[in-house]
Amino acid sequence: MSSNAPSEPGTIMSGEMAEQPAVLRRILDEGVPAIREVAARIAARNPRFVLLTARGTSDNAALYAKYLLEIQLGKPCGLTSMSTTTAYGAQPDLTDCLVITISQSGGSPDLVASTKAAREAGAITLAVTNNADSPLAQVSEFHIDVLAGPEKALPATKTYTAELLALYLFVDGLRGGAGNGTQAAKALPELAEAVLARRSEVKALAARYRFAERMVLTSRGYGYPTAKEAALKLMETSYIPALSYSGADLLHGPLAMVDNISPVIAVVADGKGGEALQPVLERLRDRGADLVVIGRQEEVDRASAGFALPTDGLLEELQPIVQILPLQMLAYEVTMARGQDPDAPRSLAKVTETR
Amino acid sequence: MSSNAPSEPGTIMSGEMAEQPAVLRRILDEGVPAIREVAARIAARNPRFVLLTARGTSDNAALYAKYLLEIQLGKPCGLTSMSTTTAYGAQPDLTDCLVITISQSGGSPDLVASTKAAREAGAITLAVTNNADSPLAQVSEFHIDVLAGPEKALPATKTYTAELLALYLFVDGLRGGAGNGTQAAKALPELAEAVLARRSEVKALAARYRFAERMVLTSRGYGYPTAKEAALKLMETSYIPALSYSGADLLHGPLAMVDNISPVIAVVADGKGGEALQPVLERLRDRGADLVVIGRQEEVDRASAGFALPTDGLLEELQPIVQILPLQMLAYEVTMARGQDPDAPRSLAKVTETR
Repeated sequence: MSSNAPSEPGTIMSGEMAEQPAVLRRILDEGVPAIREVAARIAARNPRFVLLTARGTSDNAALYAKYLLEIQLGKPCGLTSMSTTTAYGAQPDLTDCLVITISQSGGSPDLVASTKAAREAGAITLAVTNNADSPLAQVSEFHIDVLAGPEKALPATKTYTAELLALYLFVDGLRGGAGNGTQAAKALPELAEAVLARRSEVKALAARYRFAERMVLTSRGYGYPTAKEAALKLMETSYIPALSYSGADLLHGPLAMVDNISPVIAVVADGKGGEALQPVLERLRDRGADLVVIGRQEEVDRASAGFALPTDGLLEELQPIVQILPLQMLAYEVTMARGQDPDAPRSLAKVTETR
Repeated sequence: MSSNAPSEPGTIMSGEMAEQPAVLRRILDEGVPAIREVAARIAARNPRFVLLTARGTSDNAALYAKYLLEIQLGKPCGLTSMSTTTAYGAQPDLTDCLVITISQSGGSPDLVASTKAAREAGAITLAVTNNADSPLAQVSEFHIDVLAGPEKALPATKTYTAELLALYLFVDGLRGGAGNGTQAAKALPELAEAVLARRSEVKALAARYRFAERMVLTSRGYGYPTAKEAALKLMETSYIPALSYSGADLLHGPLAMVDNISPVIAVVADGKGGEALQPVLERLRDRGADLVVIGRQEEVDRASAGFALPTDGLLEELQPIVQILPLQMLAYEVTMARGQDPDAPRSLAKVTETR
């Protein structure tokens, strides 16, 4: 088969999902010194607050970084509304501000423009991309390469987990110290392999939910970016409308929409985020919602269905890198079960030329 | 009929929607001096950056304030992830930071706890509520009363537009000067009356969309909070899954989900936000999407359906206060057409006790 021949549906996405343990290992084996050097240089500048800029999947990685920076470093953070700069020409004073722009391709013109504007406004700029030669890497003062290798499927998978790990290692570097977090992250490649090997379990879940007309995803804390990324993955592959809410926001309105015909997928971290989600899970069980849990075995046992994560002893802040895997697989399997091609969702381009 | 007798479905919500011109007039007639005084005192402290904390409808008002603060004042802003404080005990350094907490009731325990923690961490704290005696107003250094009167329907309507106007006047006050923005806002009550009088047009739209299985809402810039609030209103009253995206984010994935069976409601501001949305509208028209426009007559004419807004000469940053009205009415009329009661969506409480 020539390299230009159309491949079987889903082979590109499934190949890239399967690469994830190797990509995580590559970052841990080869990427750490460069990431820690960037972190040390930025820590020396002592930023007062952090703005994160990204879109799509990378925006969910940005939200993960926001939790890390706020909880572990006490840095106030915001996610950028890019149009304030690109459409309205806002000129904020960004002295003492670290602006982190995250993009797989590093090619989206609005990200490049807003990062350039931030640098001119006095910000310390850091690009996190999968392409060291990209325009975004070049306009930024600092760059972290997520080392994921070329990503060809339209739904991003390996670059998401690579972005999470790179951001985790960066924040761990900002904290200084001996890099205990980096040590803890070494468990990830094997855990990821173990989860990815359980394809038959995910296929069974997909059989159960392939006819769902909508899905609601919820979580709290570090698991919330996982819920948002899973919703995006489901929508862009299967076209099932998937709504994601933090558990607290779900109780402020959208809960009215949940009933026993809308499955709710809850990402229940093993830690404080999972504890904070318990009242929401109780409300959902009281309503008779069809509840799918991604979390510890005992949480799965109390739900209608789920996928048990082997996260024993894994820091809560590292769990998102494993949590997303069964949900990527679910998006893939539901899409295949519906006879669609997850590699090439209609009307999407890999580098989105938003301005 | 005693005051405890159940009223006809929808009468509470429709009564509160109808009060909006009077509430806007009350804020302009009676609220301005207090708001400008708070603004002057906070401006004198010269905050470097702003964090906004809210949930549900008030979170959409917070997003509106974020655009105002970034564009008009050049202040970097972030929306708070409350669980970082309430679940993880994060202890950020909030010196020079203005923390604005927005809540209709001022009673949600997590908002009170996170505002108290922010004040202890050195922040200037401002509560924007509809209840000056609320716990939130009391733990905050500053308070703005949105003067909307008691709100009884579960879907918030008049407190949303009241929050927007109060926040607009506050940011106008922070800018100092003669209060030209306040002068411009005086057009709002009459415009709101004119829009609310066009109920038959909205009923016709509701007849067209009552069987929709999902809706997608999009906008850019100042109109984006309107899209998010309209999605929340539709979900909590009619239970139709309504997804909202900034126009740029829509192109990064969820567009795959849009086809000619999913209506897309676009909020097209008369100004830069509307201009920035044009490429997205073109893509949607190319795909044959059923496109509903809330915006100028000429934008409506190029769409499948819509509601023309009489915003001629109204500052773009004030348009959200009018834009949301036909969308509140649409949520109401679709819900009535589906035989449900918009006053009392299942399983929601007016003061949400999230922690």
